[in-house]
Amino acid sequence: MKLTILGCYAATPRTFTNPTSQVVEFNNSMYLIDCGEGTQVQLRINKIRFSRINQIFISHLHGDHFYGLIGLISSFGLLGRQSDLHIYGPKGIKEIILLQLKLSNSYTQYKLYFHELTSTSSELIFEDDKVQVYTIPLNHRVYTNGFLFVEKQPFKKLNINKLEELNIHFVYYNKIKNGENHTLEDGTIIANEELTFPPKKPFKYAYCSDTMYEESVVPIIKDADVLYHESTFLEQDKPKTIHTKHSTAKEAATIAKMANVKKLILGHYSTRYTDITVFGDEAKTVFDDVLLADDGKTFEF
Amino acid sequence: MKLTILGCYAATPRTFTNPTSQVVEFNNSMYLIDCGEGTQVQLRINKIRFSRINQIFISHLHGDHFYGLIGLISSFGLLGRQSDLHIYGPKGIKEIILLQLKLSNSYTQYKLYFHELTSTSSELIFEDDKVQVYTIPLNHRVYTNGFLFVEKQPFKKLNINKLEELNIHFVYYNKIKNGENHTLEDGTIIANEELTFPPKKPFKYAYCSDTMYEESVVPIIKDADVLYHESTFLEQDKPKTIHTKHSTAKEAATIAKMANVKKLILGHYSTRYTDITVFGDEAKTVFDDVLLADDGKTFEF
Repeated sequence: MKLTILGCYAATPRTFTNPTSQVVEFNNSMYLIDCGEGTQVQLRINKIRFSRINQIFISHLHGDHFYGLIGLISSFGLLGRQSDLHIYGPKGIKEIILLQLKLSNSYTQYKLYFHELTSTSSELIFEDDKVQVYTIPLNHRVYTNGFLFVEKQPFKKLNINKLEELNIHFVYYNKIKNGENHTLEDGTIIANEELTFPPKKPFKYAYCSDTMYEESVVPIIKDADVLYHESTFLEQDKPKTIHTKHSTAKEAATIAKMANVKKLILGHYSTRYTDITVFGDEAKTVFDDVLLADDGKTFEF
Repeated sequence: MKLTILGCYAATPRTFTNPTSQVVEFNNSMYLIDCGEGTQVQLRINKIRFSRINQIFISHLHGDHFYGLIGLISSFGLLGRQSDLHIYGPKGIKEIILLQLKLSNSYTQYKLYFHELTSTSSELIFEDDKVQVYTIPLNHRVYTNGFLFVEKQPFKKLNINKLEELNIHFVYYNKIKNGENHTLEDGTIIANEELTFPPKKPFKYAYCSDTMYEESVVPIIKDADVLYHESTFLEQDKPKTIHTKHSTAKEAATIAKMANVKKLILGHYSTRYTDITVFGDEAKTVFDDVLLADDGKTFEF
């Protein structure tokens, strides 16, 4: 799994920092999460081809998470895109995008599908051969979801010793890799589990932004390999988290610890702090394996 | 008059070029024309304080001219703006902005006034002590206006010889500067024109983007000091201007010549051309005084 941070700063875009957007990659398939203003330029700077983006997941309708979406959709159109684009986000996102396309008389020539979210409990919203994506209901000023990406293993790993012991011909191997049981010549059915190794635990990436400290996410993101959690503030500014419904670095780390995740990535930093290392320092008082997102940074796991 | 080009390239924002936006300055008052995606960052890069923008003129509702507006409005709010903001643009602009503010639950604490334009003939839409702004109806794929800025001279220049000859006391000078007639002690009324010099010709800046070749603009922009005219294409690509309703550099120069303007600035270049000097070369075959806009460039007249 590869993660490219296009932007990870809160509120307004500035000369050298960008609002939230990131690209998640599983086995060569890319998924865009959030789309702040300037995302299309950040995709170019990070050399990510527009044609590789086919699904966009929008956490909530605050500007720093979606004002770049209409521009990206329009640019896809101007550049001749033909393939479908699927957008997952809060109810209302379709109306905003279609109104702008209507008033600029520039409907896209490619198909644009909106999947509007309204559920307040976690649900499976997308699945392909690489991943399943579940919502993570968050607690913010407007309706907000995080997203849990769960890797799928398209093929099972064969237990060759067992297959040879049972004299199973290799022409059947692909079917067994795909999870099928096998029937021997004498009619005995061998369960797939006997012919393959137990699947390794699927890689899980949880994205939680924006949210205040919210323990109800813990069971949803339990044991994730990587958790990206917003840390807009430090504990010294904790009163600001009440009205704004954001988290401190320590709170992000507390969620990471409670959920028993392997690694925590912090982001969505308030621009009031000039040095982001302070977020890592604070989080490490609670949780060991803390990484700091930054614009243009990539992580590979 | 000072002009700062924040962006002057057509269609999609790219790593090193920006869609249309520019700041016009008359006697320390600034006016923003168009607001493509990324304009707020370009304002920062060009060190233009957000608080100096109080009027925004949007030519039309194509994304490369207004997708940055909602972000700018939101950032003004996040940064604590208190002063009013006036937006002039095509009908529909209010609905787009208010829908986005509503769905993000982030109405501005400052007052936001929309002045929606629908007229297809030139009209005075704004006036303060520095300028009058008139629309210039253009011919594009959607309803589009250019803008003509006409400098106002708040004070008349006094004819001191004449004032002394008539023994007019200096306590009356301010009123005369403001254009009032003067009454002598014997009751004789002296017309203001006799006590002041004829005003110098007001500086006129005409902004025409986007538009195809359209001669009806000529009487409106007649004798302007500076004309900014789009030149998306070169003559070699003239067929593309028909469907897209854009102009070539030569057509821009032809309008400049017919309108007897003093200087022509070209912009809104299609990114298919790698070197913008070709636009200047083509325009100079028709009109002498051609300047090339470029992102971050300033012009002072």
